[in-house]
Amino acid sequence: MSGRLVVLGTGPGNPAQTTPEATAAIAAATVFFGYGPYLDRLSLRPDQRRVASDNREELARARAALSAAHAGENVCIVSGGDPGVFAMAAAVCEAIEHGAPAWRELDLEIIPGVTAMLAVAARAGAPLGHDFCAISLSDNLKPWPLIEQRLHAVAAAGLVIALYNPISRARPWQLGTAFAILREVLPWTTPVIFGRAAGRPDEAIKVVTLAEADPLHADMATCVIIGSPETRIIERPGLPPLVYSPRSAEAKS
Amino acid sequence: MSGRLVVLGTGPGNPAQTTPEATAAIAAATVFFGYGPYLDRLSLRPDQRRVASDNREELARARAALSAAHAGENVCIVSGGDPGVFAMAAAVCEAIEHGAPAWRELDLEIIPGVTAMLAVAARAGAPLGHDFCAISLSDNLKPWPLIEQRLHAVAAAGLVIALYNPISRARPWQLGTAFAILREVLPWTTPVIFGRAAGRPDEAIKVVTLAEADPLHADMATCVIIGSPETRIIERPGLPPLVYSPRSAEAKS
Repeated sequence: MSGRLVVLGTGPGNPAQTTPEATAAIAAATVFFGYGPYLDRLSLRPDQRRVASDNREELARARAALSAAHAGENVCIVSGGDPGVFAMAAAVCEAIEHGAPAWRELDLEIIPGVTAMLAVAARAGAPLGHDFCAISLSDNLKPWPLIEQRLHAVAAAGLVIALYNPISRARPWQLGTAFAILREVLPWTTPVIFGRAAGRPDEAIKVVTLAEADPLHADMATCVIIGSPETRIIERPGLPPLVYSPRSAEAKS
Repeated sequence: MSGRLVVLGTGPGNPAQTTPEATAAIAAATVFFGYGPYLDRLSLRPDQRRVASDNREELARARAALSAAHAGENVCIVSGGDPGVFAMAAAVCEAIEHGAPAWRELDLEIIPGVTAMLAVAARAGAPLGHDFCAISLSDNLKPWPLIEQRLHAVAAAGLVIALYNPISRARPWQLGTAFAILREVLPWTTPVIFGRAAGRPDEAIKVVTLAEADPLHADMATCVIIGSPETRIIERPGLPPLVYSPRSAEAKS
């Protein structure tokens, strides 16, 4: 008898940003797989088990969860933010494609969540108010030259850029190189938002220009948003500035 | 005495995908501004007023809401999905920048939500599992040639593409032209998802290839996701296929 697998996102970490759909799925599951800090956000009952693993072990975690569901358990894989954005949903699909044929017949549900760039954007104004993209700066699973090509292409095309996984101990120089590439394409006055832990008690939102953007402002919990040439900063007396990308855009010369 | 302005997103339309943060803000507000169908989703109390307007009147709506907040009211602007993605947060910022100086001192909060592409992606698998972008196909506020340039650039760069505002009575041909442009750049076998009303009772998720993609599959409630050359379809016996973009990517030749 087969069980069930739910892959869900808790949102950026503020419990008020977790959807009722995700909360109900958490209440219904009996075993939880995920990166330890994400599992720590859950208030589990004594009858609910947790299997924590490191954030580099996504495919192994997906396979273990699929096996448990196939064995009849009611399984939940927990991501922060949205499970479909640089998170576990793709790893689960990859495991299904290359795994046991029976895994294709499992009862699988993916439950969306508020992804980090949306939470950061909401705290800063409306930087994603026009065309934008999300790029992971991790070169664990793709070659760095491809990331450079993409940064060039999207900046030249006028898209706002949200950078996920901007920096880690194992990847200390990539974000600085990304800023250097973007300075070749974008005005140095372009707004850059360092959005750390949006909506959580340790939240820190910092707005600077591309000229001033320093990788030291980012850590693993940061989503970095780089404006387009049209993105604007509104200064406000006694309040943080608002950063927004106008809904309208002009033709490029 | 100044009131307060909250700009929030209800998510794609399924009440279980509205965050508790948004629900609490709705309970606390006294007057609501928004596009009629989004206001219809709210269960308001008799003491809560609504001011509905057409979806082409965003700037006027933003100004009216800011005026009401400045006059002391507890105002809520309601978007579907996330308010920062092709929705009201940017219109409010634009109104503040060009409006009365006192509007800059208002108590303004923006509350994020689950945007359409995340809900559609969750129903289809994990098509946004790698680098992706969101582009509005509306040429009301930007010239069509700019949209064509951007589609070319992001497809050539290998990003998955989520198209917002793909079609309307006033813009009947743009989506077909977009598919024609993408067929010049992408393999015709690239998966395309037409995600209509994700999470709602009238939900319809359709997966085809780029060769088969027909604008007639889309309406105003549809978010269209076009894969990258790496995006894959997993067939499942007795279940809809899973569409996903692998977490890894190869260097381009």
